[in-house]
Amino acid sequence: MKNRFDLNKMDLPGDVKKLSYEECDKFAAQIRKILIETVSHNGGHLSSNLGTVELTLSLHRIFDSPKDSFVWDVGHQAYTHKLLTGRADTFDTIRLKDGLSGFPRPDESEHDAFICGHSSISVSAALGIATAKKLNNDPHFTIAILGDGAFTGGECFEGMNNAGKSGTNLILVLNYNEMSISKNVGALSKYLSTLRTKESYHRTKDAVENVLDKTPIIGAPIKKVVRSSKNAFKDMLLHSTVFEYMGFKFVGPIDGHNMEELDDGFAAAKALQCPTVVLVETQKGHGYPPAEANPGGYHGVSAFELSNGNPDVVPTDSYSCVFGRRLTDLAYEHNNICAVTAAMKFGTGLQYFHKAFPDRFFDVGIAEQHAATFCAGLASSGMVPVFAVYSTFLQRSYDQLLHDIGILGLHIVLGVDRAGIVGEDGETHQGIFDVSFLTTVPNIKIYSPSCYRELEVCLDKAILEDKGVCAVRYPRGSDKTQREYIAPAVDFEYEQNGSRVLAVTYGRLYGELKKAQAQLEADGRKLDILKMVEIFPLSEKYAEIMRGYDKVFFFEESYRYGSIGEKYAAMGIPLELAAIDNYVPHGKVEELLDDVGLSAGKMLDRMTANFDENDKT
Amino acid sequence: MKNRFDLNKMDLPGDVKKLSYEECDKFAAQIRKILIETVSHNGGHLSSNLGTVELTLSLHRIFDSPKDSFVWDVGHQAYTHKLLTGRADTFDTIRLKDGLSGFPRPDESEHDAFICGHSSISVSAALGIATAKKLNNDPHFTIAILGDGAFTGGECFEGMNNAGKSGTNLILVLNYNEMSISKNVGALSKYLSTLRTKESYHRTKDAVENVLDKTPIIGAPIKKVVRSSKNAFKDMLLHSTVFEYMGFKFVGPIDGHNMEELDDGFAAAKALQCPTVVLVETQKGHGYPPAEANPGGYHGVSAFELSNGNPDVVPTDSYSCVFGRRLTDLAYEHNNICAVTAAMKFGTGLQYFHKAFPDRFFDVGIAEQHAATFCAGLASSGMVPVFAVYSTFLQRSYDQLLHDIGILGLHIVLGVDRAGIVGEDGETHQGIFDVSFLTTVPNIKIYSPSCYRELEVCLDKAILEDKGVCAVRYPRGSDKTQREYIAPAVDFEYEQNGSRVLAVTYGRLYGELKKAQAQLEADGRKLDILKMVEIFPLSEKYAEIMRGYDKVFFFEESYRYGSIGEKYAAMGIPLELAAIDNYVPHGKVEELLDDVGLSAGKMLDRMTANFDENDKT
Repeated sequence: MKNRFDLNKMDLPGDVKKLSYEECDKFAAQIRKILIETVSHNGGHLSSNLGTVELTLSLHRIFDSPKDSFVWDVGHQAYTHKLLTGRADTFDTIRLKDGLSGFPRPDESEHDAFICGHSSISVSAALGIATAKKLNNDPHFTIAILGDGAFTGGECFEGMNNAGKSGTNLILVLNYNEMSISKNVGALSKYLSTLRTKESYHRTKDAVENVLDKTPIIGAPIKKVVRSSKNAFKDMLLHSTVFEYMGFKFVGPIDGHNMEELDDGFAAAKALQCPTVVLVETQKGHGYPPAEANPGGYHGVSAFELSNGNPDVVPTDSYSCVFGRRLTDLAYEHNNICAVTAAMKFGTGLQYFHKAFPDRFFDVGIAEQHAATFCAGLASSGMVPVFAVYSTFLQRSYDQLLHDIGILGLHIVLGVDRAGIVGEDGETHQGIFDVSFLTTVPNIKIYSPSCYRELEVCLDKAILEDKGVCAVRYPRGSDKTQREYIAPAVDFEYEQNGSRVLAVTYGRLYGELKKAQAQLEADGRKLDILKMVEIFPLSEKYAEIMRGYDKVFFFEESYRYGSIGEKYAAMGIPLELAAIDNYVPHGKVEELLDDVGLSAGKMLDRMTANFDENDKT
Repeated sequence: MKNRFDLNKMDLPGDVKKLSYEECDKFAAQIRKILIETVSHNGGHLSSNLGTVELTLSLHRIFDSPKDSFVWDVGHQAYTHKLLTGRADTFDTIRLKDGLSGFPRPDESEHDAFICGHSSISVSAALGIATAKKLNNDPHFTIAILGDGAFTGGECFEGMNNAGKSGTNLILVLNYNEMSISKNVGALSKYLSTLRTKESYHRTKDAVENVLDKTPIIGAPIKKVVRSSKNAFKDMLLHSTVFEYMGFKFVGPIDGHNMEELDDGFAAAKALQCPTVVLVETQKGHGYPPAEANPGGYHGVSAFELSNGNPDVVPTDSYSCVFGRRLTDLAYEHNNICAVTAAMKFGTGLQYFHKAFPDRFFDVGIAEQHAATFCAGLASSGMVPVFAVYSTFLQRSYDQLLHDIGILGLHIVLGVDRAGIVGEDGETHQGIFDVSFLTTVPNIKIYSPSCYRELEVCLDKAILEDKGVCAVRYPRGSDKTQREYIAPAVDFEYEQNGSRVLAVTYGRLYGELKKAQAQLEADGRKLDILKMVEIFPLSEKYAEIMRGYDKVFFFEESYRYGSIGEKYAAMGIPLELAAIDNYVPHGKVEELLDDVGLSAGKMLDRMTANFDENDKT
């Protein structure tokens, strides 16, 4: 199969239109090989991309990108699209620093109509693009390709509620695959499943044509498309779905691995020239022969959760799992503790809790707004809900934190996972804003532990002792400090070495700072360190410590505006703040920490300039 | 009718159960009289409350509050509920400072299960409460009463998607009234309208009973309820609605002004003992005889918009209208300008734009997430979208600002209305967080004009000259400064009077500060003033001015953490910040400004302490 199709020599995406169905299947196989090879090197989203190969090929056969606009939701299923749109030669750089992004990016290619790292935005974005086309009398199409996971997010519904009657050339491709759906994402999943299997929805070709005969103007061309296809549109359905109630035409379900059905379906949707939903059934991981990869990896696919972020099954040695296990331990003793996740059970380490307390575990789907208010409802009735959520996705709960939780001072604990730089998923996923927006919630308390043991004691305190809204934030990955605390700090740790210079930090950066301190010491220079654990509200105690120094460095893995360092500086402490100044692109965590000046090396550079010979012991 | 029922002497809500249907109607009439009288004095939400009188009476007849929990969405339709639950004697204080809140508040009464000033949260909150009951083996019911407007918000959908299969005693009362729905809130409204009118949904009593016969266990008791009612459940329907697909039982539609139908419907829903949707048709403003009030006021009801906040038709003399008219003027010259609102056309002054450019005007319903991403889609295609939104509701767009707009640096203009303290609607509605959260969006520009003319020039600049995300924020109400500028400030205005003391402010507070300055002057003391208009990003120019003074006061109508003053303080400027320290309850704007220390009088007090006799000229 090797080099049967040379992606770099083909004139893509146009040449995809020239392939026979047989050639398409072979081309798809070749693409799968590239996907598997690349992801095995660079990491990334394998299963979802293997599921969308034929779907993507067909879209590029029926539509004309970039005149027709593709919006991928979430964007991690767009790898084949990248291969077909001028990025085959650099595809091996995907997710690497300065390489291709793992998500669509308009600044990477004109074929990427929009970004999408957070789920459920595609209908809204595509409706905006389609509306602009309509206003400009541009007859081209806007196609949103969304997974069934995206469908559980409220913004998707808001978009659908507006799109059906928009009179635009908007096509929503609903990529339904049962493997991605956990049991608990709710009613809609059940409905889609019904659509797929219910006999009554499987109309005959005649029935479809009967409908088309009654459809003025556009009926005839669609009928022509239908007739020109060898296989009847046995699954095509133009009426009686929820989508039709919402103002859409409906096509499907279509076998997402059958090129001919796909081509026919998309051609029909195109001919309709109105807001249309196309339901495509795909199989995640399709075409990935277990023998070609390690069998454990393939088996692991089943553990992949519905995810709008990182699909990794979190290793046992991680903050997430320490959090999940500790929470489970606490729940054995306190039967009012509940755990809530927005489609991130494994990612947040809640699988332990789920197993032990299925009645008190709630996976609400990709629905962070609901998750927060649901917690508020639980808390108002005496439960202690713990919402485990990635920092970047908690942004969706901001209004609920302020309005539904904060005003009443309800006791809710946020387990803010992936706080700080997350790495390869890039700027849509970096958890660099939570400190800034959480500190705007009146009367909140925020912990940022620097090791596993601190995470445990912070969680204990937040759940058992504190009142009101509490957040415990911790980074992606594992504890690199290898510290064994008997009495870990729950508020702060102050290390005095008799220096005139103090470095202040919290969370993961403490490990970096300790490395920088060791280097300074090796050079004969002393450094005092204040490690905060309870980082907010501000503490006069911390301020007093800082005021005792000639020079204070404040290192913070957080966006600068709204940062903790900024707040202490505003108290009149002349500290030098090193924080994050802008969005952070993708790359390895250590590379990115260095880029933003927060690696041990960069800390050392910054501080060294402030020591002179007198500082040597 | 006077004193037929003495609310203060009745044992409420229990006594409501003892009334005959005839007495209920008379009681309802009396309640309407109280509502009209009170609202005419205190302002507030009249039409929606007039529509829910019988609905509320019936809920209290069939259910047992507070054991059964009521969650009102939005809460401004809960006035009758307040009258029936121990607050009749203080009802005349509603919306007044230190009086009853215009919204439900658990800290005001145990009968208010939750707050709700922002729309669409009730299903999530009620599901949380119902789940807690289930976990505690409490058989009582949780009832969310939501308007059809609330139904357009995505969080409501997220909640529905989880509630249907929850196995809780959750009842959703969908209060549908066509007067509240503008033409453009989308597909769902159309669907509900279909449910109400479509003949096929109007089953006979026999058909309903037929269904009940097939329903094991619970069928019989419902049938009994059905049979015991004099009027057949001609409208009752247990199958074939979207709600049923989502896992709910469905009851309705019910005439929301017919006590008997209401009682029967709620009793049936109660008997089902599973998640149930009850569709109730009400008429906004029902029972308000035009002759009893001023006819103009009743006529004005038709101009009321679907609103989760303030229903006032905004007076022509307001920032909102100045904004709306200027935007319309600009749109005549620039055909890529679009206007977007989330169900606040009149409130944000966009009625002018809508009339002039219906094709470029978009009311998306109560859907702030969608609104922001939709704007991003428009902007990515060369349009210049202006999203006019109340400060407090913009909190719902936070993730979209960061993710969908900010990363790509799309040029979108936010018209942030009701920025600062809004008054009687209270803490759920105060616009005191927008500065804090908007400044966390990288590369944003924020204007805060202090008068109409400045608003116009800021809007011009944001739309015609700036790039990226821009926010122009302005208060509720009218310009009190009565200033006539020929060349208004677009960045700042620096008034030097030779003082050692500088006061810095922006927006509406400038008017207060000028009053304070006049008082100081009358006392022979000089005060220099820096009025910022472009308040973010920070300006070294402003910082330099501040550094030139012995004493700098910074007055800011914004939450202190994340405020502009905090940021300048963090630059090492020893300013004294007067900002808002916590949530702000309801009351008149001037009262509340004084409470938080930002009235002219409080500014004067604060500054006076810093002047001594030497400062006198």
